Amino acid sequence: MAQNIYDNDEFFAAYSGLRRSIEGLDGAPEWPYLQAMLPDMSGLRVVDLGCGFGWFCRRAAEAGAGSVLGVDLSQKMLERAEADTDDSKIIYRQADLELIDLPAASFDVAYSSLALHYLADLPRFTATVAQSLVDGGTFVFSIEHPIYTAPLNPGFVTDDAGHVSWPLDHYMVEGSRTTEWLAPGVVKHHRTITTYIHSLQTTGFVLEHFHEWVPTPEQIDEFPDWATDLDRPQFLLIGARLMNPVGCDFGTASAHIAPVDPLPNRQ
Amino acid sequence: MAQNIYDNDEFFAAYSGLRRSIEGLDGAPEWPYLQAMLPDMSGLRVVDLGCGFGWFCRRAAEAGAGSVLGVDLSQKMLERAEADTDDSKIIYRQADLELIDLPAASFDVAYSSLALHYLADLPRFTATVAQSLVDGGTFVFSIEHPIYTAPLNPGFVTDDAGHVSWPLDHYMVEGSRTTEWLAPGVVKHHRTITTYIHSLQTTGFVLEHFHEWVPTPEQIDEFPDWATDLDRPQFLLIGARLMNPVGCDFGTASAHIAPVDPLPNRQ
Repeated sequence: MAQNIYDNDEFFAAYSGLRRSIEGLDGAPEWPYLQAMLPDMSGLRVVDLGCGFGWFCRRAAEAGAGSVLGVDLSQKMLERAEADTDDSKIIYRQADLELIDLPAASFDVAYSSLALHYLADLPRFTATVAQSLVDGGTFVFSIEHPIYTAPLNPGFVTDDAGHVSWPLDHYMVEGSRTTEWLAPGVVKHHRTITTYIHSLQTTGFVLEHFHEWVPTPEQIDEFPDWATDLDRPQFLLIGARLMNPVGCDFGTASAHIAPVDPLPNRQ
Repeated sequence: MAQNIYDNDEFFAAYSGLRRSIEGLDGAPEWPYLQAMLPDMSGLRVVDLGCGFGWFCRRAAEAGAGSVLGVDLSQKMLERAEADTDDSKIIYRQADLELIDLPAASFDVAYSSLALHYLADLPRFTATVAQSLVDGGTFVFSIEHPIYTAPLNPGFVTDDAGHVSWPLDHYMVEGSRTTEWLAPGVVKHHRTITTYIHSLQTTGFVLEHFHEWVPTPEQIDEFPDWATDLDRPQFLLIGARLMNPVGCDFGTASAHIAPVDPLPNRQ
């Protein structure tokens, strides 16, 4: 079972004060890039995995989605999501993404914002998403960038000459990382970009979009702290499509290429 | 025009002494992963862009390739490649990959080992490769990992507590990096993973393989210095396929998704 840090009072209070918790998607600077990876929502069946306060669920419904299922582990998050939602097309459900089952071929779009790095078992989750989508379905998600999650003791350092850097270590060593973010003892799971992409490809997805978010010069003028993202990316955004090889030469053309296995967990 | 550092006497002498220069592909630990990304070579027309001493050209011919064109900027490298090759299926040609033209739809496989990070103009190169391949053709290449090329002054550091890290900076700031590797003044071009993948996708490729190389425990036992690759990857290996959207729903299904533009060069 995943750690339910969002129901921790200290964490919840701090998270509720973040700009993205108050302003929603408009307060999340990576949102425009995720939005560009998503299809026209008209009539589509959407699932939001790790929906939090429901900002994306409501936006999807406003954009014409036929139905939206929002899933989260945190009861506190879901209570506010319910309170802030007045749309019968949106249903919220409490579930642990580590253990969740989803109905087969029932969604056109799966979305997940900054949740997958909390999951220990990525292959199970990716396979669950894949079987829940129709052929041609879209899976768009953001994660903390592996460069950001890799270090055992993350943090920028400034050397004697004033040079700022992000001391990277253990990038290739996958596994859990316990850090302090809003509250102590937050457990995240670091894995390489290789593993994220491989997990998609082995469950039938084709990578469509890959975007390491970085602030614009205008954003850095407004939020000078964000300039550190030029040194090390914080968010990785990925868009993939579930491909049906029938009627398409992709599956047959690549069938004779041996897959490259992911690296064993080196921890 | 690209820097011709391989024709520098000091660099050439040092490069000639590397294990991969003496033992060829068997001395390049990332080779088995590249090999797994390549199709059965029987009868295929192959181009090796940055062929160096011709190790891959000869291996491809031995594996049954119908023809192999090896291209390199360095006259010194090509002289040894010619001297070491006795196979009429292999042709070598001196050319600058920054400026090269290749005949249209003339190759089944394009290969490039550790060369693209020397090129300033990646979009031109990727487009040149794309138009030179037949539909369904394969493009497999390795590069120095962007985590490796990003820092302005790359190198591991050990802090007072004995903790070793790779001080990452300027990951999101693309552009040239002048470093010392085998000789001073070697010019490489750093770009993000986003840019590499976007360059492939905008020229008609679908990403098939993505592999951040890491040594095995057995390799680290044999070469203890390689353990630093657990902290920061050195090589990124990519395999892509040129996709003909005709007869395949990939092109039409994704047509309504707005592309995500690459970031402007922030240097």
